[in-house]
Amino acid sequence: MANLGFIGLGIMGAPMAGHLQAGGHKLYLHDIKNPPANLIDGGATVCTSAAEVAKRADIIFLMVPDTPHVEEALFADNGVAAGLTAGKIVVDMSSISPIATKEFAKKINKKSCAYLDAPVSGGEVGAKAASLTIMVGGPAEAFDTVKPLFEMMGKNITLVGGNGDGQTTKVANQIIVALNIQAVAEALLFASKAGADPAKVREALMGGFASSRILEVHGERMVKRAFNPGFRIQLHQKDLNLALQGAKQLGVSLPNTANTQELMNACAANGLSGLDHSALCQAIELMSNHKIAQG
Amino acid sequence: MANLGFIGLGIMGAPMAGHLQAGGHKLYLHDIKNPPANLIDGGATVCTSAAEVAKRADIIFLMVPDTPHVEEALFADNGVAAGLTAGKIVVDMSSISPIATKEFAKKINKKSCAYLDAPVSGGEVGAKAASLTIMVGGPAEAFDTVKPLFEMMGKNITLVGGNGDGQTTKVANQIIVALNIQAVAEALLFASKAGADPAKVREALMGGFASSRILEVHGERMVKRAFNPGFRIQLHQKDLNLALQGAKQLGVSLPNTANTQELMNACAANGLSGLDHSALCQAIELMSNHKIAQG
Repeated sequence: MANLGFIGLGIMGAPMAGHLQAGGHKLYLHDIKNPPANLIDGGATVCTSAAEVAKRADIIFLMVPDTPHVEEALFADNGVAAGLTAGKIVVDMSSISPIATKEFAKKINKKSCAYLDAPVSGGEVGAKAASLTIMVGGPAEAFDTVKPLFEMMGKNITLVGGNGDGQTTKVANQIIVALNIQAVAEALLFASKAGADPAKVREALMGGFASSRILEVHGERMVKRAFNPGFRIQLHQKDLNLALQGAKQLGVSLPNTANTQELMNACAANGLSGLDHSALCQAIELMSNHKIAQG
Repeated sequence: MANLGFIGLGIMGAPMAGHLQAGGHKLYLHDIKNPPANLIDGGATVCTSAAEVAKRADIIFLMVPDTPHVEEALFADNGVAAGLTAGKIVVDMSSISPIATKEFAKKINKKSCAYLDAPVSGGEVGAKAASLTIMVGGPAEAFDTVKPLFEMMGKNITLVGGNGDGQTTKVANQIIVALNIQAVAEALLFASKAGADPAKVREALMGGFASSRILEVHGERMVKRAFNPGFRIQLHQKDLNLALQGAKQLGVSLPNTANTQELMNACAANGLSGLDHSALCQAIELMSNHKIAQG
């Protein structure tokens, strides 16, 4: 049994922490809200600050919304860094800036502690089912130590490289997912407007070079008009913002990512940002005055 | 044994006609060049016009470069239409405009002949290996008649709907393939510039929602700098032109398709249009002054 810290117990963090507790570990929790009752009933200790979590736990997980929240949890006056002693491991499972992550890791390393960036994909469903994909950056030794804990929360767990590379992989994932959704949307909208049955076109394309997980899952949602989340457009906007801000900082041109972010902005302008990201198709549907299929 | 016509015996048509001949059928050939010697040696008859092919064969296949070539082969003075008698079937396997296809089909139908649009994907390799994907539009009865012949040339054969729907499906396929290539290019270039190993990022993404046939095949080509065709950028430019011209005619907005065509134009401006379409990544590599990987 290890002493584990968990900071950020929202719709992702709460079930993830639950899997660690179910695995027999002692939890030290901190959140801006009261941590879930089931974790406390299960024996978790609620800490009044992130620093206290870092004092009492040996491995400290973070699962918060964005880069500034990680920075505050780590480096505010009563943050994780203030409570660390040598040999502990900080594991940030939030999806945040890869560039900021490298700085955070260096500052944690100065406390003689290891840092892993380990963002996930799979959403609330994957968090509850312990089937998250986990993309990790950091030193191999720390990865090996934490791996049995990752395996309680996810299934497809890869050490991609050094610190930041986990977050970079997550950004790359979100670029591809967004652009593949837009690809399927443009193809099916063209097909529908040309008079073909988009469901049959999708089926005909499934075996060939156009095949993708997005054509399979999100293509079906577009055809069936099943836009309940899933993964909300507003969260994908945040992820593409990480891509585009990162691109500006790094000096990379991402023209279709930028264009697709604008189409997500168009969805938001039309009140659609709470829908599943497959509803990205509605931007060009509005622009074209035609729907892929009737709901 | 059926009497089959084949018009257009280039790098695609020649091996496709060869499979029909190997299947025991009598071929009547017409091309702007002399048809391949192996087909003539195998017993094929060379006709001096498309009309003569239509007179002597019961099912007439076309495999020519673009919409104007199909129009000329069908409707010029000595074209297919001039030689047709009732009950024959015209099968256009070229990749052309879905909108023009519907008109061509109507004109052929007036001769009491059936029309199938049956474009393929799989390229020269698929044509030689008889493993083409064939996307068909037209009446079910004609499809059933021609299906055993399609099966000599391809593997994944789908009747999508009525005339034009085969071509529409092909256009949809080419939209998704182009946009998925650009998606992988943007993701891997971002990852590379951020300091991650693009090969490892690609591997980490293969199991999740970013997975696609393009990530698998074209992503590997980008990482390995293996840009020998394959499917040339200049051919994909033609296909996206069908998409964008069709979009204008139909009244559909395809923003990422338009953007991606411009990136293909940028490749062409840099002398890359003869490379495989995975080399589309070189447009943003030039724009970003950074390569996904060194060759």
